[in-house]
Amino acid sequence: MKAEIITIGDELLIGQVIDTNSAHIAQQLNDAGLDVVHIASVADNGSDIVSALDAATARASAILITGGLGPTNDDRTKQSILEYFHSGTRFDEGVFQHITELLSGRGVAVNERNREQAIVPDNCTLIPNPLGTAPGLWFEKNNTSYLFMPGVPFEMKAVLSNAMPLLRKSVSGFAIRHKTILTQGLPESMLAKKIEDWEAALPGNLSLAYLPSPGLVRLRLTGRGTLDNDINEAINQQVIKLKKLIPEYIFGYDQDTLESVVGDMLRDKGAWLATAESCTGGTIASMITSVPGSSAYFRGSVVAYANLAKMNLLHVSEALIGQHGAVSREVVEAMAAGAREMLHADYSIATSGIAGPDGGTDDKPVGTVWIAIASPTGIYSAMHRFGDDRERNIRRASVTALNMLRKAMLGSL
Amino acid sequence: MKAEIITIGDELLIGQVIDTNSAHIAQQLNDAGLDVVHIASVADNGSDIVSALDAATARASAILITGGLGPTNDDRTKQSILEYFHSGTRFDEGVFQHITELLSGRGVAVNERNREQAIVPDNCTLIPNPLGTAPGLWFEKNNTSYLFMPGVPFEMKAVLSNAMPLLRKSVSGFAIRHKTILTQGLPESMLAKKIEDWEAALPGNLSLAYLPSPGLVRLRLTGRGTLDNDINEAINQQVIKLKKLIPEYIFGYDQDTLESVVGDMLRDKGAWLATAESCTGGTIASMITSVPGSSAYFRGSVVAYANLAKMNLLHVSEALIGQHGAVSREVVEAMAAGAREMLHADYSIATSGIAGPDGGTDDKPVGTVWIAIASPTGIYSAMHRFGDDRERNIRRASVTALNMLRKAMLGSL
Repeated sequence: MKAEIITIGDELLIGQVIDTNSAHIAQQLNDAGLDVVHIASVADNGSDIVSALDAATARASAILITGGLGPTNDDRTKQSILEYFHSGTRFDEGVFQHITELLSGRGVAVNERNREQAIVPDNCTLIPNPLGTAPGLWFEKNNTSYLFMPGVPFEMKAVLSNAMPLLRKSVSGFAIRHKTILTQGLPESMLAKKIEDWEAALPGNLSLAYLPSPGLVRLRLTGRGTLDNDINEAINQQVIKLKKLIPEYIFGYDQDTLESVVGDMLRDKGAWLATAESCTGGTIASMITSVPGSSAYFRGSVVAYANLAKMNLLHVSEALIGQHGAVSREVVEAMAAGAREMLHADYSIATSGIAGPDGGTDDKPVGTVWIAIASPTGIYSAMHRFGDDRERNIRRASVTALNMLRKAMLGSL
Repeated sequence: MKAEIITIGDELLIGQVIDTNSAHIAQQLNDAGLDVVHIASVADNGSDIVSALDAATARASAILITGGLGPTNDDRTKQSILEYFHSGTRFDEGVFQHITELLSGRGVAVNERNREQAIVPDNCTLIPNPLGTAPGLWFEKNNTSYLFMPGVPFEMKAVLSNAMPLLRKSVSGFAIRHKTILTQGLPESMLAKKIEDWEAALPGNLSLAYLPSPGLVRLRLTGRGTLDNDINEAINQQVIKLKKLIPEYIFGYDQDTLESVVGDMLRDKGAWLATAESCTGGTIASMITSVPGSSAYFRGSVVAYANLAKMNLLHVSEALIGQHGAVSREVVEAMAAGAREMLHADYSIATSGIAGPDGGTDDKPVGTVWIAIASPTGIYSAMHRFGDDRERNIRRASVTALNMLRKAMLGSL
């Protein structure tokens, strides 16, 4: 069954806000077996919204809409939606109670605008929004379903989750399955060259897509068919073949991240990790601690941005920094050793480099990054030359360092 | 003049990748005076792309497209685009030289796929792509301009930047100006209530939008007209009025971020900053160091995730942690004092809290966060109760802490 997504908001069209809602909705719909064929972002005004609804209705039978209904949205937008579905309105006591409870829990008094939010269309199903004041609205018209949700991402996620049973009910027997293989360490075109024979031999119901991001390339295999088991089996066979081709570059699958994979390995080993970050500035620690439960294996980090921090907190000697410079094998190894010792860790990661845009020299241009791993069996280090862009350099150094830790734990460094 | 954006990629429709390209393109077009009226994401196949091009052509006279042309994209997609513009192909020696130089700089050998990338349509203008192998393609057809760009964000940005002179040439005298006012500390509905009279009295050529994100609400004023100066003047008058209404909540404007505002203040003061992060796990350090030049005022951070790190690196006493718990006024103030001292800083930020999903108690539920600022004039601390979601709690704690530092530097805590 075909689905479409419409995100409403002037902030999307002027580029002030990145649309993260569509990706989340598309994932959920896909998992439920719906095929998203089109995503549109339109302005917060009645005529553009109605045009988008008409275009989507011509192509799909489930249409999910975000935005356009919040406490501060234009009333004319709401009016257009009511007209589109020939709706009257009614005051909903349950919605009003929920709003009152939600705001009093936050110590906020209910105001007139909140009272207006309890006025709802009289011909739709209300989908509870536990995290916000505006409920989701589910309309059915000419065999097409329409779900209107708030635009704020965490509220939208909550409403969508509550609407999934209704959506699943409408899906037929056709199935789509995806498997994503996560790689680190090979640029897209080299990876493509390495696996081109495997790709050319893929069966007709499977397709491959390359998804590069700084430091990583994800490979997505998509299978289509009528029987879940057949598709899963076909995908798994191909993954086994691929794994034999590029074993050293694959670090995980699907929702895995380097930080979750590394976290699981540390937990399994009962080992502790610490980091000592200069050019990555806390990004590695932030990635590691984004994983729930990371306090079971992560001691902490010294973000040693200034040399003084490297000396005072990691006991790197001033003479070593003077002799080799802060961006050097010697210093990054001393940082790794210092973090491991000071934080009583089994493994440590250290980074020191020139993220840019300033600070580069002929010898050590912007993008030069030293990474070290200290482990129970020794210290490993390597130099990388990334690019010119500060944000990408920080990101590439961080994922490269995490993958180096992964390899060190596997004994394959 | 009206513009539209089309992003091509199956990964967008299954929700595997968030479309960040559209926001960047929309910003650039807006700044050049083009009005983006529609953004669409479609599958990487010829018929959907052609349908999207047709629909966009009916509404707009500048159409920007990303994706569909990379080294690993489906050849049928490329074929459809050639047919749409009635193009033949030719081998471009300049493009091939650029590809060869780019890859040899990365130590990668040129392969057959790279040679194919130098085959380009024979009736378009090539837009240089310094960061990648595929150039941008600029077509003109029936008074409409079409710009095809790579899908990888940093390559797209480089190509778009090179195409801006061509785009600007096509814009007429109508102007749109935006001013965004950045606030921290008030939820959306309370903010709306506080400024409702001001909002109701806005002149007809100005409009207001609310853009909430965890811990922040941005207010965007949009003005339309024919004379830049008139619009800017009308916007500035309203900003002055707004600033009188909610002075304590406004921390910046437009592209400002809390980390850039705080960085500028530290640089102006000639002051040094350090952080001691428990529940924020390095996120504050990572935000601060995302700003180019932050090494001029940021010493570093101790990410003191484990109590051992609080004791060894920040000299917080074991007895204090035992008596009050790690999430307490006493411990967070000791962390702030320890970071300030150990890192020879003038100001420090410390956080200690329960990000979730586990670790909450009746006394200290998930979302409880203590924040302290140590400064030359004393230590300030405050407790916050955020929500249930780990990622949002980390983000809200981080922006709240940065704004607290800002207020401390202003002497308004």
